[in-house]
This record gives sequence, C-alpha cells and structure tokens, in this order.
Amino acid sequence: MNTESCLFPNTRSHFIYEMEKQVQDLALEEKKEVAKEVILGEDGQPLSKKALKKLEKEREKEQKRIEREAREAEEKSKREASEVDYSEGRYGVLPLNRSTTRENRVYTDIKDISAAKDGQKVLIRARVFTSRLQGNKMCFFSLRQQYNTIQALVVVDKDTISKPMVKWCGSIGLESIVAVEGTVQKSPEVIKSATVQDAEIHVSNVYVVSPVKKHLPFLVEDADRSEEQIRESEENAKEGDSKFVRVLLDTRLDNRVLDLRTPTNQAIFDIQSGICDAFREHLLANSFNEIHTPKMTGASSEGGANVFKISYFKGAGYLSQSPQLYKQMLISADRERVFEVGPVFRAEESNTYRHMTEFTGLDLEMAFYEHYHEVVEFLENLFLHIFKTLKEKYSRQIALVRNVYSSEDFVLPVGSERVRFHFKEAVQLLREAGYRKQLTPGQEPPKDEEFRYCEDPEFDDFSTPEERVLGTIVREKYNTDFYVIDKYPSSVRPFYTMPDPEDPRYSNSYDFFMKGQEIMSGAQRIHDPELLTERMRALGIVPDVGLQSYIDSFALGCPPHAGGGIGLERVLMFFLNLPNIRLASAFPRDPKRLLP
Amino acid sequence: MNTESCLFPNTRSHFIYEMEKQVQDLALEEKKEVAKEVILGEDGQPLSKKALKKLEKEREKEQKRIEREAREAEEKSKREASEVDYSEGRYGVLPLNRSTTRENRVYTDIKDISAAKDGQKVLIRARVFTSRLQGNKMCFFSLRQQYNTIQALVVVDKDTISKPMVKWCGSIGLESIVAVEGTVQKSPEVIKSATVQDAEIHVSNVYVVSPVKKHLPFLVEDADRSEEQIRESEENAKEGDSKFVRVLLDTRLDNRVLDLRTPTNQAIFDIQSGICDAFREHLLANSFNEIHTPKMTGASSEGGANVFKISYFKGAGYLSQSPQLYKQMLISADRERVFEVGPVFRAEESNTYRHMTEFTGLDLEMAFYEHYHEVVEFLENLFLHIFKTLKEKYSRQIALVRNVYSSEDFVLPVGSERVRFHFKEAVQLLREAGYRKQLTPGQEPPKDEEFRYCEDPEFDDFSTPEERVLGTIVREKYNTDFYVIDKYPSSVRPFYTMPDPEDPRYSNSYDFFMKGQEIMSGAQRIHDPELLTERMRALGIVPDVGLQSYIDSFALGCPPHAGGGIGLERVLMFFLNLPNIRLASAFPRDPKRLLP
Repeated sequence: MNTESCLFPNTRSHFIYEMEKQVQDLALEEKKEVAKEVILGEDGQPLSKKALKKLEKEREKEQKRIEREAREAEEKSKREASEVDYSEGRYGVLPLNRSTTRENRVYTDIKDISAAKDGQKVLIRARVFTSRLQGNKMCFFSLRQQYNTIQALVVVDKDTISKPMVKWCGSIGLESIVAVEGTVQKSPEVIKSATVQDAEIHVSNVYVVSPVKKHLPFLVEDADRSEEQIRESEENAKEGDSKFVRVLLDTRLDNRVLDLRTPTNQAIFDIQSGICDAFREHLLANSFNEIHTPKMTGASSEGGANVFKISYFKGAGYLSQSPQLYKQMLISADRERVFEVGPVFRAEESNTYRHMTEFTGLDLEMAFYEHYHEVVEFLENLFLHIFKTLKEKYSRQIALVRNVYSSEDFVLPVGSERVRFHFKEAVQLLREAGYRKQLTPGQEPPKDEEFRYCEDPEFDDFSTPEERVLGTIVREKYNTDFYVIDKYPSSVRPFYTMPDPEDPRYSNSYDFFMKGQEIMSGAQRIHDPELLTERMRALGIVPDVGLQSYIDSFALGCPPHAGGGIGLERVLMFFLNLPNIRLASAFPRDPKRLLP
Repeated sequence: MNTESCLFPNTRSHFIYEMEKQVQDLALEEKKEVAKEVILGEDGQPLSKKALKKLEKEREKEQKRIEREAREAEEKSKREASEVDYSEGRYGVLPLNRSTTRENRVYTDIKDISAAKDGQKVLIRARVFTSRLQGNKMCFFSLRQQYNTIQALVVVDKDTISKPMVKWCGSIGLESIVAVEGTVQKSPEVIKSATVQDAEIHVSNVYVVSPVKKHLPFLVEDADRSEEQIRESEENAKEGDSKFVRVLLDTRLDNRVLDLRTPTNQAIFDIQSGICDAFREHLLANSFNEIHTPKMTGASSEGGANVFKISYFKGAGYLSQSPQLYKQMLISADRERVFEVGPVFRAEESNTYRHMTEFTGLDLEMAFYEHYHEVVEFLENLFLHIFKTLKEKYSRQIALVRNVYSSEDFVLPVGSERVRFHFKEAVQLLREAGYRKQLTPGQEPPKDEEFRYCEDPEFDDFSTPEERVLGTIVREKYNTDFYVIDKYPSSVRPFYTMPDPEDPRYSNSYDFFMKGQEIMSGAQRIHDPELLTERMRALGIVPDVGLQSYIDSFALGCPPHAGGGIGLERVLMFFLNLPNIRLASAFPRDPKRLLP
C-alpha cells in the first residue's frame, strides 16, 4: 500500500474485495468441517475396514480437491488484490467517525470553487447527488453541498486510479457522504448540470464518510423539479419513454429529512432563517426587547375555542394560541416595545393548503404616544425592511426556488410612499370592480359566482378570493404589492380591539397584505379594564381566572399600545409563491400529522 | 380657561372639583324634591286650611332656607372654582386614548435628561413612582421609565400653579401613567433618590394618561430592595418604627405585571433579551441557520419520562422535551449548522429553586469534519462572546441588579486560553480537596457530610455541591469562572451520545460551567443507525414510531455532528446570581403555577 496516496490510513480498505475474501474464507472453513465428520454407513453402523480405506482414499482425493480449490480461490483473491494494489488506500469506506484523531485537514466548500482555482488540489466533503459509470474507465459524480453542486470525474490511469476503484466509485449509493480529494480543472465548456459551471474536479481519492444504509424512498433529483417540467416530460414522452417521477406531498413529508435536502428546500429554509433575522434586526435597532411568554397556560384565553388541552400533573392546562395576552401584560409591565418569535398552537380541524396546527409567530407589541398610526407606520417600515433584506441578501436563493415554484418579483412602494385604505374604501374598490353585492333577505348566494354576496356588504370581512381581487386592483391602481387595510369592522375583530372613536362599528385595526394575501393582523388594543370588560360582556365572553389577571394588568395603569402577529410560514409561502404552507415548515403539523 | 396653558384641550377638567360640584348639585336637587311632596297629616288625612297655611309659611321659610343654603353652596363652589381657575387646563385626567388626534408632540425620555438640558422645556410620559405633598404648596414626584427616574416638583405660584392643582397632584395614585410638562432645572445638589442626579423638572402641567384603578398589592419601591436592606431595617428598627416591607416570591409572581416594573426586573429582562441577541449574533456570523422545530410531536421521544401529554383531536400527542431529535434530523437534512431559540417542556414534579416545567432553550447543532472538539472550541468562543457582550453593553443593568442581588464580577480566561478537563481530572481535583470518597459495600453515607460518598467514585456524575466545590478549586488554580469538563461517563449521558473511541466507559460529551454551575450540556451524537440501535437496546429503550424516523435519518447518510442545549433562564440566573430561577422568567411555570 502506497501510504503517500492514502489520505485516510485507517480506511476500512476497499470493502467489496474485503467482503469477497471473507466469503471465500468462510466457504473453506465449512468444507474443512465436512472432512472431519464421524462417518457412518447408510445403515447407521460404522463401516468395514475395506470400506473405510476406500472412503479414506476418496476422502483424500476430495480433501485435495477442496484444498486445491481453496488455494486457487485464495490465489485468485490475492491476484485480484494485487491487480488493484496501485489504487489501494485511495478509496474505501472510512470507519465511523468517533473523533479518534484530528489532522486539521483543510476542506473546501463547493461554493468557493471556480476556474480561478484551476490546478489547485482540494479536499471536499459532500453528498453524492448523481453518479454515472461510463464504460469501466470513468465515473462522473455530481457532488452536492446544500444547493451547490460540482462535477467530479474519476478516470482510470496506469499509476493511480485502477479499474476496480472506478467500479467501486460507481457503486457508492446516492446521498452517501464522501470525502473527495482532487484537482480543480477549468472547464472549456459551461457545465450546465452543476452550479459551479466553469470548473470540475479531477479526483485522486474517494472515501465514504457516511454511507446510505436504507433504500431511498425517492431521489433528491426527482424531488427538485417543477410541476411544469414534470408535465412537459409527460406530454412529450412517447410509448416506453421514461417520464419524470412526481414526488407527492405526503411522500415528501413522510420522508422529510430526505426531502429537505433538495436545493429548493435548502433555499427555502435559508430564506425562512433570513426573515426572522431581518425581523429582529429591525426591532432590536428600534429599542425592542425580546420576550419569551409561556406556552402552557392555566387559562384557555382569547375566547376558549380551538385550544389544545394538556395534562398538567394532577390538573389540566392549555397550549397558548398566541402570545397576545402576555405581550400586552408586558406592555403594562413597562417593557415598552416587545417582540417574540415562538410557536403558536391552533386546534382547528382545517385540512387546507394554508392551515397548520402549529406555526411560528413573529409577534410584537409597542406602546405609542398619541395615535396607533405611529405603530402602523413602524410596521410598514418593518415589512419593507424585511422584503428589501430578502431581495438583497437572498437573491440567489429566491432564484433557486423560482426554478421549481415560479413567482414574479415583488413590487414595493417607492421611497416613503405607502398605500393604506380605510376598510370602506377597500369595499368601494371591490364594488367598482363588480364584486361584493348585497344579498336580499332570503336570497341564496348564486353558486356560479366566484365571490361572496354578503348579508351586509359594508361590514363583512373579506373572503380570501376578495382579498386576491383587491390585490390585483391595488397593484393596477397604485403599483404596489404591499399595502395596508385599516379600520376593520369591530364585529370581525377580537374583543380586545379598540373601537374607532368616531364610529364604533369600525375599529382601530389593520391587516397587512402582500399580493392580495394577508400576512399580518393587528390593532390598537383596549388598555382600560372597564371598556375591556364591557366589550367582553357585549360579545358574551366570560372572563375565566386567566383572563382576570390580563384585565387586572390594565387596572394597574397601562400606556396605549398596538401591535401585530405575523405568521412566519405564511410570509415565506406568499413571498415565494409556494403552493402549500406545509412546504414553508420544516416539520409541519396538521390535524392528521404529528410525525416525523 | 387659558387655552395656551392647556396642553390637552380635551382634558376631563380637574376631576376632584368636578365631582364635588356634582355631589352638591345632587344634594340641591334632593332638597327641592322634598319641598314638592304632597303633605298629609300624621293621621294620614289632608290637613285643615289653617294647618295648611301654617305649614305653607313654615315651608316657605324652609324653602327659603334651602334655597339660601343651595345658593351659598353654589357660590362656594363657584368661588372655589374661580380660585383654581388660573390652573384650569393645566391638570386633569385625560380621556382614554382611542387615537382620536395626532398632534405629533415631542416626548423626551428620562434617560436623555441631564443638567445639559438646563432651562429646556420637556414633555415626559412616565409612571408616578413616588409622590409626596409638602404642606399645601408643593408636591414632589419621582417619575419612572423602566429603571430611569427623575425628580419633578409642582410648586404653587400666583399665576400658573394653584393650591388645588398641587393638592390634586398629591392625590394621583402611585403607578399611574402621567404626562408632565415642565422645565429642566440643573440641581445644585446631587439628587440621590433618582437616576438623573444633576437635574429635576419644574412642572407646569400634569395629566393622568392612564390611572390606576385597583388597590396595589404592594409598592414597586418595596419590591425593589435587597434582602440585606430589609434585614438591616428590621435590626435597626426601634419600638414603633416602621420597617421595610418584604414582598414574598409568591406575591410577586401572583402580581407579576406589577413586580416586573421594578428597576431590577427591567434590568434583568434587558439582559435576558441581550443573551439571546448575543447568542444569535455569534451563530449567524458563523453560517448558522435558525430553525423552528415542532413542539407537538407524536413521539414521546428521548426515553418517554417527564413528558406532558396533549389531546390532539381524536388522538394524543406530546410536548417536546427539547429540539434534540429534530435538530439532529436537520443536520442529516444538510442544514449543516442550526440553532433554535424556543420553549422546552419538562413534566418533572420538582419544586426547587432551579427547576421550571417550561423554559427557553438555546439549542444548537453543527456538523464537524474530524473531531468534536471543533464544536467544543466553537461553543467556548460562543459563551465568551455572550459574556463579553453582556459586560460591555449591559454594564448599567448588571450594576442595577447588583443593588438587589449582589454578585461578583465574572472572571474569564485571558486571550485564547481555555480551561478544559477530562472527567477523570475533575474527579482527581475533587479527591485532592478531600471530596468524593469510596463507599464501602453496605456502608450508609455519613449524614453530617456535605458531599456524597459514591458507590463508584470514578463514574458517578457530579452532585450540585461537588460542582460548586469544583468551581472554587478551578477559580483558585486557573483563575477563571468559565471552564469545560469533557468526557463524561457514558452511563450518565443520554443514549444518543457517542462513546469515547478508546474507553467506552467514557463518552464524547461535555458540560460547560460558570462559577461551578452547569450552563450547557452537549456531546458528539451517534450518527450511525446501527450503533444508535445498539445503544438503545443496551439501555432498554424501545424505539417507538417517532424515534424510528430519527434513527432512519442516519441511515440516509449523516455527517458527524455535535451540539448543545443552553437553558436561557439558567444562564441569566447564574450570571446575575439570582436566588431563584423563577426570577429569570417573565411568567414562570412550575408544578404549582400555570398562571398568570
């Protein structure tokens, strides 16, 4: 074994040949065992001397044959071993890493490789994304790190790379993690199949760091195609042609670890992390404090419906539906401006593309001086900061996601311009476009209409299709995908919403929209215990023991305040035009899914 | 009313006098009613003409008396009203802020006021922390914003501030939120009772923005004293002297909104927010991704004990005990370096000063190349970054907390020096100091000993007192409060911990300590499905359906990885030397507390 060529001296040699040798050794042992048996005649009695002698001769003959065969097998194995000798140590499966040694080898990231590194030796640890044997002399790899891929070639030569080594490379299971050493070589042509398009690796050593020990339920490559690509392949396929495989949502979610490895998913979750970061960045720069409010509570809170019950020692508790009550209590506790990023639980049995039973809430609440529009303006700037940060820092990831889920660029208002409507105005815009008609008493809404007829078109909340139409109207009229509707009817908002001072049928509440889809709901909250109790009474809410400490916190004096709650996965879904909210959550939860 | 002096024209006038006037008006009305009654004799029959005439005269007399008294009362009221006229509009209770108007008045923060602003007019919104009437001509306020306080004086003069205004100021309930306008005046003496010590406010206008409508269960001032101060007052108090009130923990927690307003608590929760920020700052700067893993799971995970059960529609689920399994699955999903800040649930019925049933986990996990010490080094630097950031950015808050909970400064290793022991060495250090003795078979541990005698002193985990002693020893020998113990015995670590490659009785696991108190536990994890299953079998853990997808994720190929979990509240508690972990959580949860 040439120790110089051997990058990892403790490599479990080239395992295929090891295993073959073991199998042969076992066979030899077995045959020797047979030769030592105590021999009885067919009648069960020991044989006569003559018969024994005859048998002895036969046995000797047989024994010699066995030994000869064994010798031949051993020689064959040695011969084969000597045939691959010149590659030994250059490939193989590494033993499980238990942190035995530390060599401080330098590993290079695929994203940092380009033609500029031409001629340099690099060591890469990556997954085998695709592999292809070409004849028995060449193996092509596509190596993958997150969404970065590079082409690597293993080519037989007379000094270093043997045929068995190439054959072995071709046998490495897809998704195995390998450590590959080789030389960067500038590519004369654009390598379209990889993200590093101007260079490839000419491999000298390949080791399996972590093998795949399970049948892959689907290929990462197959899980990373757009619906359009799949349909096209189906339409163009002739009899017998192979079409692209469609990996269904449930298959993905059942095998989420594998699914998350697609370049698209790597990009999606980079952006998810980026949204949280941009959210906090803006808040911390504006004197907000991060808070952590309890998720287990003794009060069913906010009305009592849609809440998960938990066993709490000998009693019971509930999972928090939002940090609403606690973040307000922290305003009364003088924290002034607070935010929380945390889980939110909703026991709604909705099996739709946009509902989950657990999601990540980006919640904030702030005291204001004179008017809740101080908060609305702050929130508008917060969202613009998030969107601009994503466009600037995550342009590559956005482009990657668009390969699979197409979407158009997001139009933001220019400079300090903001688009904000009174709820009435939004209703008017819908009317002008022919929607939101009055339902005469007793009239059934016509079934062929896409949009609702309302009992009272002035004070009904918008339906999802209405919101979408509104998005289109606003985009046409005001050239923005981001806008706010202010002053929602009191009847469609929670009890703690401050009524409008002039017309109590409306309230000091708002929804934020991107492309006609609601991404945040918020309001000025009632900070007076009497008005709050009055509103609760009017809505038939009986304050339980938990709500009482919430109400009491306003009796201790509380500044006027407003805030909002953002669904992280919704923002991600709408920003990237994902077809299902489950795709925006690493391990989504819905009424039918608690695993993995 | 002098409208110029009136800052808020819609003030609900000066309410005390309003109320007095209303009471007088009511009394007048009542008396008039009496005069109009139909009069019958004592026998129930109408009176004779003579008797009626007599009565008429008496009545007229009485009527005149009543009218005279009423006139006098009205005049007195008018006189009093005219007496205060010159202050009218300068004080009163503002109507509930429903965002009616927006004047864009400029408010000043107390922290920005100093003698440098001498002579400037400022408008401040703050809480009435303390107030004191001096005679009937002066009222002293201490105004508070979080932990910033300033002295404000309302002094009678002949043009602007009337006696009734001063009297009214003295009647404002503590903890009410007021808007105060006045002039900054440089103070000739140091004002020790306020954080702004070189200036005070000479008040011209005072309005109540949000009144206290509830009896205060305790004063914020009383809740903000050290145990030493209270004891001292008790020891020095003579017969009849008033002593400081001690606000007990349960009273605080039952009224947490009020309790959180103490300057100490404001500082504690600033630092809590700062720890999270510094944690993420270091991770994001080192290519980590933020993740959000589900808190509701179908698997009881990690062994099954101490887990809260939830009702999940028609089935059941569990609350996550840590993001351990999911963060590892995300490593197998190629996320490479991940962190999460989120709630962690433990159904342990421990009612101690350092246990909660819900706390905030700062979790991280990262793939490494060769040795888990790559991760240990990263974690050491992470903690040093956090501690240094706190010392730099939160020195004022740390000093404030020390007023109530004394603590010594934290000694950190110098430069690139790090202190890290093998578990064996730590045992040796304890031995040298006379602790950790062998227990002979059948021997009961002596009761007068503070520290444990062990069955097997080589492989027993450290007890809390042992950890403390170790902290002292390390501080003396190595001059650091921050150090790591590496290579814990396998028997005291979870099943997914990678055994040490040389001696499987130890493992590739570590605890991080500050001042002899554990703040983080972590390890290299087993990333091979077979070894993992073997360990589970050895420990008698039966993989349920949830654990299966965890094990499977390693069969899909996974890089070697290590990580750790930090308890936010523990770090905060130990860093500030708080006597109880509940003080490090805004709304703590323990087996007996789910509210508020």
